[in-house]
Amino acid sequence: MSKDIRTQSLTKPVTVAEYLFKRLHQIGIRSVHGLPGDFNLVALDYLPKAGLQWVGSVNELNAAYAADGYARTKGISALLTTFGVGELSAMNGVAGAYSEHVPIVHIVGCPSTISQRNGMFLHHTLGNGDFHVFANMGAQIACESAKLVKPTEIADQIDHAIRECWIRSLPVYIWLPTDMVEKKIEGQRLDTPIDFTEPKNDAAREDYVVDVVLKYLHAAKNPVILVDACAIRHRVLDEVRDLVKKTSLPVYVTPMGKGAVDETSPTYGGVYAGLGSHPDVAARVEGSDLVLSIGSMKSDFNTAGFSYRTSQLNTIDFHSNYCVVRYSEYPNVRMKGVLRKVVERVDLSTMSRGVPINGVVNEVTKNKDDSKAITQAYFWPRIGEYFQPGDFVVTETGTANFGIWESKFPSQVTGITQVLWGSIGWSVGAAQGVALGVKDMGKDNRTILFVGDGSFQLTCQEVSTMIRHNLRVTIFLIYNEGFTIERFIHGMEAEYNDIKKWKYTDVPATFGATDKEVKTFVVKTKDELEKLLLDKDFNERKGLQFVELWMPKDDAPRGLKITTEISAKNNARTEE
Amino acid sequence: MSKDIRTQSLTKPVTVAEYLFKRLHQIGIRSVHGLPGDFNLVALDYLPKAGLQWVGSVNELNAAYAADGYARTKGISALLTTFGVGELSAMNGVAGAYSEHVPIVHIVGCPSTISQRNGMFLHHTLGNGDFHVFANMGAQIACESAKLVKPTEIADQIDHAIRECWIRSLPVYIWLPTDMVEKKIEGQRLDTPIDFTEPKNDAAREDYVVDVVLKYLHAAKNPVILVDACAIRHRVLDEVRDLVKKTSLPVYVTPMGKGAVDETSPTYGGVYAGLGSHPDVAARVEGSDLVLSIGSMKSDFNTAGFSYRTSQLNTIDFHSNYCVVRYSEYPNVRMKGVLRKVVERVDLSTMSRGVPINGVVNEVTKNKDDSKAITQAYFWPRIGEYFQPGDFVVTETGTANFGIWESKFPSQVTGITQVLWGSIGWSVGAAQGVALGVKDMGKDNRTILFVGDGSFQLTCQEVSTMIRHNLRVTIFLIYNEGFTIERFIHGMEAEYNDIKKWKYTDVPATFGATDKEVKTFVVKTKDELEKLLLDKDFNERKGLQFVELWMPKDDAPRGLKITTEISAKNNARTEE
Ligand SMILES: Cc1ncc(C[n+]2csc(CCOP(=O)(O)OP(=O)(O)O)c2C)c(N)n1
Ligand SMILES: Cc1ncc(C[n+]2csc(CCOP(=O)(O)OP(=O)(O)O)c2C)c(N)n1
Ligand SMILES: [Mg+2]
Ligand SMILES: [Mg+2]
Repeated sequence: MSKDIRTQSLTKPVTVAEYLFKRLHQIGIRSVHGLPGDFNLVALDYLPKAGLQWVGSVNELNAAYAADGYARTKGISALLTTFGVGELSAMNGVAGAYSEHVPIVHIVGCPSTISQRNGMFLHHTLGNGDFHVFANMGAQIACESAKLVKPTEIADQIDHAIRECWIRSLPVYIWLPTDMVEKKIEGQRLDTPIDFTEPKNDAAREDYVVDVVLKYLHAAKNPVILVDACAIRHRVLDEVRDLVKKTSLPVYVTPMGKGAVDETSPTYGGVYAGLGSHPDVAARVEGSDLVLSIGSMKSDFNTAGFSYRTSQLNTIDFHSNYCVVRYSEYPNVRMKGVLRKVVERVDLSTMSRGVPINGVVNEVTKNKDDSKAITQAYFWPRIGEYFQPGDFVVTETGTANFGIWESKFPSQVTGITQVLWGSIGWSVGAAQGVALGVKDMGKDNRTILFVGDGSFQLTCQEVSTMIRHNLRVTIFLIYNEGFTIERFIHGMEAEYNDIKKWKYTDVPATFGATDKEVKTFVVKTKDELEKLLLDKDFNERKGLQFVELWMPKDDAPRGLKITTEISAKNNARTEE
Repeated sequence: MSKDIRTQSLTKPVTVAEYLFKRLHQIGIRSVHGLPGDFNLVALDYLPKAGLQWVGSVNELNAAYAADGYARTKGISALLTTFGVGELSAMNGVAGAYSEHVPIVHIVGCPSTISQRNGMFLHHTLGNGDFHVFANMGAQIACESAKLVKPTEIADQIDHAIRECWIRSLPVYIWLPTDMVEKKIEGQRLDTPIDFTEPKNDAAREDYVVDVVLKYLHAAKNPVILVDACAIRHRVLDEVRDLVKKTSLPVYVTPMGKGAVDETSPTYGGVYAGLGSHPDVAARVEGSDLVLSIGSMKSDFNTAGFSYRTSQLNTIDFHSNYCVVRYSEYPNVRMKGVLRKVVERVDLSTMSRGVPINGVVNEVTKNKDDSKAITQAYFWPRIGEYFQPGDFVVTETGTANFGIWESKFPSQVTGITQVLWGSIGWSVGAAQGVALGVKDMGKDNRTILFVGDGSFQLTCQEVSTMIRHNLRVTIFLIYNEGFTIERFIHGMEAEYNDIKKWKYTDVPATFGATDKEVKTFVVKTKDELEKLLLDKDFNERKGLQFVELWMPKDDAPRGLKITTEISAKNNARTEE
């Protein structure tokens, strides 16, 4: 009865599932990662109608990692899991997205509100009648949780959650009980897109901050720009590009900022990571009297163990929702507006630039020794030469994440790492999501993954999803007999840093790839590497390629050695 | 300074890691599942000294599943993960153990107390300075959390947590900061084992309950015994066995209780699951005027959708820490003591047994049709004939978990399922843990796994661990082209219930098994199955065997069809 009255008052009634999925489509999502479960099956029926593809992931953790990669590529992503078993499996992946500011809409299909009210002893529960325990956990790693339990509020909840997800660039959690999936709500709202415009700063405050920034910038003798993760995640790369272009200031990136600026720019100076930096980089950044630090995330592995030697007195920090000039803090002043005005108002005639820097090159010959072995020192500059404009380069925690510091990117390369959260196995899922994101944009850019043999084992089945969706991914599996990064932290010869040797190149075929669908390679020497990297087909092939790349077990990139030394010391520190 | 004073006062100083690991050894643990991470590396050095083997798992979720299987076999188990990334990956596995009452000691290596106090921006954090967020989540699925941060309290905390883990048969969470690992504590305590004796009931209360039970039992005309999961998990199988033996009462098991009683016993009647039961079973149990229900867990999938038609007026419930006779509740009266006394005091001369039942057989011929196809109806009774005394039979959520109802076990078979939590992929990890538990007991019983193709994909890499530890496991992979159980709930032909076809039999070799280490089989017809099951080598082989078993896509065991029909209706129920 009441149903009729409420539903009749709706102008364009649509089901909750339709509403939610149309919203996802409107914000650019085309594929939804996740696994079915009996608490989300009915919802899945509504995906195609909304123009969404179901990925059909191999497990929920991989699905979350993939959603992370998809969001880093296409802007935002969706993950759909089932109550308890599904959502908890995804937990670590979503936590990583939270930690690294990646916007994922996580939808969890859960038991009907009736079953909940009746406290039914259902499968996928702890058997204690508590239906909220998983959602409470999920709320810890979401900037917004929406439990869709009242039809009259659902459209508002969905729109609000999705907006928060985008604006704050963090995961949100949406709880969809089975009996809400097909409830009718007002579809007319769908005619108005969710407002994704960046909140504006208070103009007077913003101008004030801009003036302060310019005062210091105009007075500085050798200012530099340092670009970090949040510049990417909070979408100010256009402003950064314009700033670099207009000012021609030397610009550096942190490890997490790698790929944020055009590395072919004449004023690009390289990767700054405290003691982990090349000496000339360290000298210039630490010798600067004004570091314009954009979107910084000064975590241990992003700073080679907190080894910055810059002074806050010489620093201006631009953040997603505040700025800091030396020690003066400006809360609620978002960097986007400030940076835009700094670009517009900077007076080039009064600004100094210090000594020009020389740009960066891939130091291939310098790092080539006489051995046949593919050393870490040699590999990364060499692979830098292999990269092409438009590539998406995904690197895993381990030697890869530190090695990539030594690769200079061509322009328009997107670097994708998880340096802060650092969950191994992530990159395999992420690479799938990246490549699918590329495909969903109607493009065919290369996705190139560098993953350690140890990390690969955690999430290897994601290769199956790459095959299923016919994605363009080139996987470099760093075969170095185990957990090399851990060896450098502790236990160089310890058994716990060993892994079972797999036949890695058989993985794609085992997961269903035909000979047409995959090409595999084993590369043990510098010469073999050279040959492969120069091969035209290898460079141009559209499908999946899998390279088993032999590297010495006890070899690590420069930056890793420095960082792990400092990290081991931190762990060992005791006090009494 | 203070260090010296405290340490000097210790009689037999040992490090925290030594203490903890020696305790694990004392309670019967021989292998520890988990992955290294820089916050637990130093602790790992202490495993061998304590006589513990490091498993070297392939990922944390699998490690948790394996720890679950190990505990179900050897009594209790340990899982060691690293802060954030590791522990969250394990979350779903530990939650499953919580839900199903499996005792796992989960140890998480975390940043030093100094780093925490200084709020350092470390990798594996959310970047918000909150070091407790993961532990708070973990506490939701642990009966006890111990943060080891004060040396003087650590030994107490460890002993208490381990005792709780055992007695309550639930996971516990132990938080081990890097700077505590090598702190010295009193080792003399290790001379006294942790007290694992079951708390005694108050004698007068217990006697009272026993009298009430006996009063009803002696008066009943056709009593039956119904054995469920908690009888296994709370270790009263000896009492149950003695009760059955002494009384010769008809005894039934629930799906989660399968394997709890000797199915060759003349009074064993089969599986009771409400409407999911065979008619003669339902008739007898539901027609009984007294059901002695031991350790029940009346979840939906354990009761074919809450379809019991027994009356509480005819029921006595025995639970780990309370009993219920009809509607009279007796809190804090543990079933163990009560059952023991019931066995001792039951007066056989005044007890009725109703009409004798006929025992149970594997209905092979009855279910054999003319098709070549291996139907679900045919397979399960047939495989029942293949089982041997001493087998450990692991079944996965999906058709396997319902099919196994139709297999009659020989005596001394252990059935291992996860019916309540129902997380797919669990069984592959669990089977590894079971087989390792068997091996650690110095035995070589067979571990036989039945897993669906869909479930297998989530955790396939656990096969690598089976190979690494040279375990005796026979895997039956039910190849039926996807999520058959889900098809029966919703979407019989839906794409989201399809999976990528793998070359399943190549999996072991890809994960490193030599031809000597694994034998693989593809079985497509009843005849091929027959041949394989009769093969002597197949029955006796000690290592890994992998059978790809073809079954029709749209075929399901009887019990599954009934249960999913009811479950789909529950999900669909709406109200307004
Ligand atoms: C989920 C998770 N588990 C454990 C760790 C700890 N960990 C960090 S790096 C690493 C080893 C990575 O080894 P591999 O991928 O082979 O890299 P490489 O040998 O190139 O260093 C481990 C185990 C982690 N970061 N994440
Ligand atoms: C971690 C997790 N994700 C999703 C589900 C939902 N689910 C339950 S059974 C099932 C399909 C199992 O398929 P398969 O293993 O092939 O079994 P079968 O075909 O024999 O039924 C799924 C997806 C779950 N129970 N656990
Ligand atoms: Mg490695
Ligand atoms: Mg299947």
